[in-house]
Amino acid sequence: MPPRPAVGSLLGIETLELKQVYQILDSARRMQRRGAKSMLRERRVALLFYEASTRTRVSFEYAAKMLGATTTVINATASSIEKGESLIDTGYTIMALGAQAIVIRHPSSGAPHLLSRHVDVPVINAGDGMHEHPSQALLDAYTILDHKKNLKGLKVALIGDIFHSRVARSDVLLLSKAGAHVALCGPPELVPDVATTLAPNVSVTRDLREALEDADVIIALRIQKERLEGLALKLDDYIARYQISAERVRWAKKDVIVMHPGPIIRGLELTADVADAERTVILEQVKNGVAVRMAILARALGVKH
Amino acid sequence: MPPRPAVGSLLGIETLELKQVYQILDSARRMQRRGAKSMLRERRVALLFYEASTRTRVSFEYAAKMLGATTTVINATASSIEKGESLIDTGYTIMALGAQAIVIRHPSSGAPHLLSRHVDVPVINAGDGMHEHPSQALLDAYTILDHKKNLKGLKVALIGDIFHSRVARSDVLLLSKAGAHVALCGPPELVPDVATTLAPNVSVTRDLREALEDADVIIALRIQKERLEGLALKLDDYIARYQISAERVRWAKKDVIVMHPGPIIRGLELTADVADAERTVILEQVKNGVAVRMAILARALGVKH
Amino acid sequence: MPPRPAVGSLLGIETLELKQVYQILDSARRMQRRGAKSMLRERRVALLFYEASTRTRVSFEYAAKMLGATTTVINATASSIEKGESLIDTGYTIMALGAQAIVIRHPSSGAPHLLSRHVDVPVINAGDGMHEHPSQALLDAYTILDHKKNLKGLKVALIGDIFHSRVARSDVLLLSKAGAHVALCGPPELVPDVATTLAPNVSVTRDLREALEDADVIIALRIQKERLEGLALKLDDYIARYQISAERVRWAKKDVIVMHPGPIIRGLELTADVADAERTVILEQVKNGVAVRMAILARALGVKH
Repeated sequence: MPPRPAVGSLLGIETLELKQVYQILDSARRMQRRGAKSMLRERRVALLFYEASTRTRVSFEYAAKMLGATTTVINATASSIEKGESLIDTGYTIMALGAQAIVIRHPSSGAPHLLSRHVDVPVINAGDGMHEHPSQALLDAYTILDHKKNLKGLKVALIGDIFHSRVARSDVLLLSKAGAHVALCGPPELVPDVATTLAPNVSVTRDLREALEDADVIIALRIQKERLEGLALKLDDYIARYQISAERVRWAKKDVIVMHPGPIIRGLELTADVADAERTVILEQVKNGVAVRMAILARALGVKH
Repeated sequence: MPPRPAVGSLLGIETLELKQVYQILDSARRMQRRGAKSMLRERRVALLFYEASTRTRVSFEYAAKMLGATTTVINATASSIEKGESLIDTGYTIMALGAQAIVIRHPSSGAPHLLSRHVDVPVINAGDGMHEHPSQALLDAYTILDHKKNLKGLKVALIGDIFHSRVARSDVLLLSKAGAHVALCGPPELVPDVATTLAPNVSVTRDLREALEDADVIIALRIQKERLEGLALKLDDYIARYQISAERVRWAKKDVIVMHPGPIIRGLELTADVADAERTVILEQVKNGVAVRMAILARALGVKH
Repeated sequence: MPPRPAVGSLLGIETLELKQVYQILDSARRMQRRGAKSMLRERRVALLFYEASTRTRVSFEYAAKMLGATTTVINATASSIEKGESLIDTGYTIMALGAQAIVIRHPSSGAPHLLSRHVDVPVINAGDGMHEHPSQALLDAYTILDHKKNLKGLKVALIGDIFHSRVARSDVLLLSKAGAHVALCGPPELVPDVATTLAPNVSVTRDLREALEDADVIIALRIQKERLEGLALKLDDYIARYQISAERVRWAKKDVIVMHPGPIIRGLELTADVADAERTVILEQVKNGVAVRMAILARALGVKH
């Protein structure tokens, strides 16, 4: 049993040094510019998904295939996991089958870390519970850097369900590490005051105008209706106070960009006109995600680019 | 947003010129004869299925893979579509992920058309609600032309559930366009009189003998038992009056061929001996489907053959 | 319709000659040593799974892909099989689509045999009901031969649910054919006395110590909790009497190896320390499975190695 995760694992932003963040982003940029065909030919990547996902699964799958790797998708619901096998034994099995890297999404926080302490191959966290989603934070940073010179000194407003969001957590950790100021905004049920302790340079406000003022970047987060049930908060109230509309975007800097990890629900987190506006870069995020995941996979498999 | 579907889209037979029909059939024939290995190497095709399907999904998947394309299958039930994302936003995302053509099956009529008015990549309709199933009509025409000199002047009998069948609709449109006469036959619940207005050269009869007399081609359509529930029609009555048996096939021309889009239920739409008879070309249809879909994909991706 | 299964089919150990067993094992060993890249390029393999499976499906999928073959996975639940199509017609369709070999898992005993009498392509049984799982028996034999000189003369103890296990059945048939002695052990509900008639050289005992004494190989079988419901046997009793613990392993020969087809449940069939012990070769079994399935696929497709 390995004492620590295999080199090339990507478990979260928390344990990544800023230097490593920029190495991945640089590698992704080179791949997007020059291509990287066949770089991972003969390599085998397993995609182990314990939760449904379109964009993250397809993004990693395309990234692997574009590098020439062989992929296999293992959905927990169609697998022996039903039969009571533990995550660790599933990991052992996948490794014995020949997988050289495991991309894992799991509803339990920490599952990729647990797995990485038992298998000898790199483990890539594709989202674990309410914990982290590091590849999303990396592609968000990549997309911001397409529009802004530096992360340092930026004001980034994160709006919506911070509490349940692994994207928010990874974004906050990365942006804070890079010297950006992060303003979290939403009702107390979704943005508890204690969120300021996530990282340095993080503030919390209930006032959307305050959050958006002087913002260079707005990141709207997904609102899951089922999460609001049982809370005092009503959907209509949320929309009235926190929906990102064209009018409210004007509170931010003139060259602000609007981001969202997707899937979006038009008329909920943001209005349809904001979704389609030129300053909204949601589809750039999706596109950049493939390049960033190519870099993550190449790093995992120890292939220099 | 594109004002019209991307060149190479295949939304239905209705909007296809007869010349285009024959171009696709000719291209498919060349591919079946000479092979077309690697023609779509480095191209990426997404298969977006909002309805279960074996044969159509596998047929498109094999067609794409035989041309060297990279495919990814997105099943609606295992995807973020559950999370409330709209079809259009899913389409945007798939395109941003790098797909260069989208093959879509959807339970709602018109879904591929809606999608095609928003994405910049070709959209291929693999069956939409009760509307169209153009690749099936094309492979049916291809299969008929393997056995008959021309479509023009043929009598084609379509038997069964015309009303709910997108295959029937696309077949009628193509055959009528090509100058064949189409005789629709079945009980009023499944073949309403108004079906004659689908296209020129279409007749409706309740009498199977009348439909089969002088027929060059018999196409039996799938009967879905759940569709009969609530109707006056009983399954036994249907079988008694409309099942294609060896004896009834003799009412048609001597060199008649029998077709069915599959999956067949032996003893329902047709008897087991008809299913296995030499004049029955159901498996040729399946086989030809791969060649026709190779041609459709090559056309979509703008690759000349 | 073919009078008999296509050459290269693998339906069960029962109909395989010992010579053929060793040919497959030798071919697998050559592939594991030298690699066999691209051997099945341009070949198409369909994986038809009517039951969920991780390890067997992924093992066959990786085996096919490592030989360069094109694979398509057809899960019964996501397929037209729901629509009432028979297994045989599904087989016809898959063959017409271009598959050159069909790997099938099915909950009904004999399903692969039925299929093989109707399609012209080789059929490979990946587990049928309570009947056989020949590729598992072959990889078990392969793994034993990595540690022991011969199968002949070995004492192999099979512990647990023999009655419901297709793995047990195939293992017994292969080991007996090769001249090993097989000691079956478990409670009467799971190991009926009549099991001795499975093959020559098979004994049944209720006493674990007797089964393990002088054993060269211990194969623990999966216990499915839902199978125990309704039986007199309680789970606690099973564990008390039949669980493989480190202490009990000492009853066997000093160089005994411990095997399990997986997925294992630690604390049920075996203790966690046995699962992780050096003499336990469960992950070797998984690894060898890919090589054995490469050999099975190459044999099916008539490619000499």
